[in-house]
Amino acid sequence: MSQKHSISLNRRHFIRGLCGAATLGSLPLSALAKSTLHHQPGITTPQQPFLYFITFDLKTDNRRDVITLMQRWSDMAASLINEKTPPTPVDSGETIGLPSPNLTLTFGFGPGLFIHEGKDRYDLLSRRPAALADLPRFNGDQLIAARSGGDLCVQSCANDPQSAFHAARSLTRAAYGIAEPRWSQAGFLPHFSKNQTPRNLMGFKDGTINPDTHSPKVADKYIWADPKACPWMEGGSYLVARIIRIALEHWDQMKVSFQEETMGRQKKSGAPIGGVHEFDPLTLKQTDKDGNLLTAENSHARLAAPEENDGAQLLRRAYAYNNGLSFTAERWPPWRQGNEFDAGLLFLCYQQDPRTAFTKIFERMAKFDMMNQFTTHIGSALFACPGREDGHYIGASLLEG
Amino acid sequence: MSQKHSISLNRRHFIRGLCGAATLGSLPLSALAKSTLHHQPGITTPQQPFLYFITFDLKTDNRRDVITLMQRWSDMAASLINEKTPPTPVDSGETIGLPSPNLTLTFGFGPGLFIHEGKDRYDLLSRRPAALADLPRFNGDQLIAARSGGDLCVQSCANDPQSAFHAARSLTRAAYGIAEPRWSQAGFLPHFSKNQTPRNLMGFKDGTINPDTHSPKVADKYIWADPKACPWMEGGSYLVARIIRIALEHWDQMKVSFQEETMGRQKKSGAPIGGVHEFDPLTLKQTDKDGNLLTAENSHARLAAPEENDGAQLLRRAYAYNNGLSFTAERWPPWRQGNEFDAGLLFLCYQQDPRTAFTKIFERMAKFDMMNQFTTHIGSALFACPGREDGHYIGASLLEG
Repeated sequence: MSQKHSISLNRRHFIRGLCGAATLGSLPLSALAKSTLHHQPGITTPQQPFLYFITFDLKTDNRRDVITLMQRWSDMAASLINEKTPPTPVDSGETIGLPSPNLTLTFGFGPGLFIHEGKDRYDLLSRRPAALADLPRFNGDQLIAARSGGDLCVQSCANDPQSAFHAARSLTRAAYGIAEPRWSQAGFLPHFSKNQTPRNLMGFKDGTINPDTHSPKVADKYIWADPKACPWMEGGSYLVARIIRIALEHWDQMKVSFQEETMGRQKKSGAPIGGVHEFDPLTLKQTDKDGNLLTAENSHARLAAPEENDGAQLLRRAYAYNNGLSFTAERWPPWRQGNEFDAGLLFLCYQQDPRTAFTKIFERMAKFDMMNQFTTHIGSALFACPGREDGHYIGASLLEG
Repeated sequence: MSQKHSISLNRRHFIRGLCGAATLGSLPLSALAKSTLHHQPGITTPQQPFLYFITFDLKTDNRRDVITLMQRWSDMAASLINEKTPPTPVDSGETIGLPSPNLTLTFGFGPGLFIHEGKDRYDLLSRRPAALADLPRFNGDQLIAARSGGDLCVQSCANDPQSAFHAARSLTRAAYGIAEPRWSQAGFLPHFSKNQTPRNLMGFKDGTINPDTHSPKVADKYIWADPKACPWMEGGSYLVARIIRIALEHWDQMKVSFQEETMGRQKKSGAPIGGVHEFDPLTLKQTDKDGNLLTAENSHARLAAPEENDGAQLLRRAYAYNNGLSFTAERWPPWRQGNEFDAGLLFLCYQQDPRTAFTKIFERMAKFDMMNQFTTHIGSALFACPGREDGHYIGASLLEG
């Protein structure tokens, strides 16, 4: 797994300063010279079947408190991942005796760490990465404030839903007085075997096209942040989270042939339209005998394809979610309101730069994708997930100095 | 598994009529004489790790529609459980290729089938079982209407969350025009091994005391409905569902010794206070050297114990739930409001008669249990889950005639 590879720290970036003028005051260079930088786990790690994702609002004006929290969280994360009882506080106990959880914890910094209600609370604004620019409003967005944003995030993934929640709950407790939970979402993947692409709640294989994270060249190009653009993000990645509600009742009324046209893939095999196997190349140029494109102009697969986005790619790490029912107004058939499934996809994706990845791809998709009839983006958040240096807490190179 | 045992149909009950005057008009007695009655699966079946529970409001005044729905559901349930694509409607496809789900589907009839806004919509009121009496209001109840009740319910349990939801979603689609979803809740159990009692979100082993469902004598006494009281419920059981929100943040601040006193059991081992092993008998009478009861007067384990409830027992089939966060006012410390975990227990229990089982036990518990400081009942529902006759749809002996 690539997050276990260490990459040599480029000291030059520290000497040049962090995203502008700041310098790394408190860390002795002798220590840095010997240290190595790791990617955080939970980015290129093969997806575990369960997720608990939570974001926090910082309730302090003092950078020292943020440092205290990140130190505490980093220590706790190491204990939790290594299945040791975290030093503080008392463990809640619900995972005692459970099998090894294959836990990963991934931490991110949202825009609110750098600027909050117009104020630079922590004197960090100069270090805000350009890639962490606020996402634009996309066509069709129906974002709920209480399910969007956050100054900090924790992505907790594990083989068991209780383990994933346990870790997030423990970290939440440790934040008491410094940061308060803003929104969270539990997620799951069905238990398809390792060589199968899991199907999402729409019944289609989801994740057939993902960059090959085993290739360092590919990962460096699409996933890992550019340290020249922002030295403290070396070894890190940018996370875009979108809560996408799916009108399953509406989708389920559609004929499979229409679903396939919408998706731009065949339902059962996952193959492109006109193709045979799941991993066949998309039929983006081929036409039928009447001259119609095989893969429809506004199909989801076409709009997501790198070939149609100047090569843009991102690493999907999405999970299904299932929050019961909620009272909803639907445009179908032709208009109705009632209790509908509050279910869909917590779309999580990692990338080198959201401006040239998620935003580039989704701006067009939000306007044209036929699938938008069935999907509504109701939550949105953005985080910078830095690399981690051995012997230092997560975010040290941002928060120190 | 005891639901696979067939039990001989006692024709006498049919001849005597159904919970009173009605008779089974449309089923020829010759067929009945040869038929066998099964318990529905999902009652004494060992708990699968995932649940999707959903209830419905009937939107028809015509009993014929209810029959149509129960016929359709019964056929679909057989297909789904046997992993065949249900005949109608088109399958949504998200479980294609998944391993065998070990699916069970359990159907129940709520009070609203018998009387709805004072009206006997289906001419069934005379068949309402006395055991299906509305639950009383319990001390501390904070029931949310949108998360309570239902004329029908489906309990879908499986090895995979996607399979459990798939079945419920398919059945919901098939109800379109007859019944609308009222509330639903996804649930999970942690993956403890078969010989371990799973821990709930409070970190305690949950389910140590459950009647031995392998003993027909025990099951007949505590779980299966009394056919003399209501013939159409022969082979059936009554389900009480309670959504119990747990103030995890508050609970997690308590010392383990206080948690143990509250629970009346030791946290790590699950043993009674003063005991050594999980299955040691509760120390209900023993006192310490100062004369204090070892198991506190108002501890949860004592209040739940059959010995303290004239022998009353029920079969717990509870699942943890995790709905993210919600804005909540808490009495702690000493009062605060904020985003707190919307998580807890979907307490499902099956019993011969809720009046002498759940209601009897919980009436005292609701008043005295020390655990009430940390738990709030926010949803409640009650269902009669009949047996199923070979060759007949679920509920035929109630709805026909």
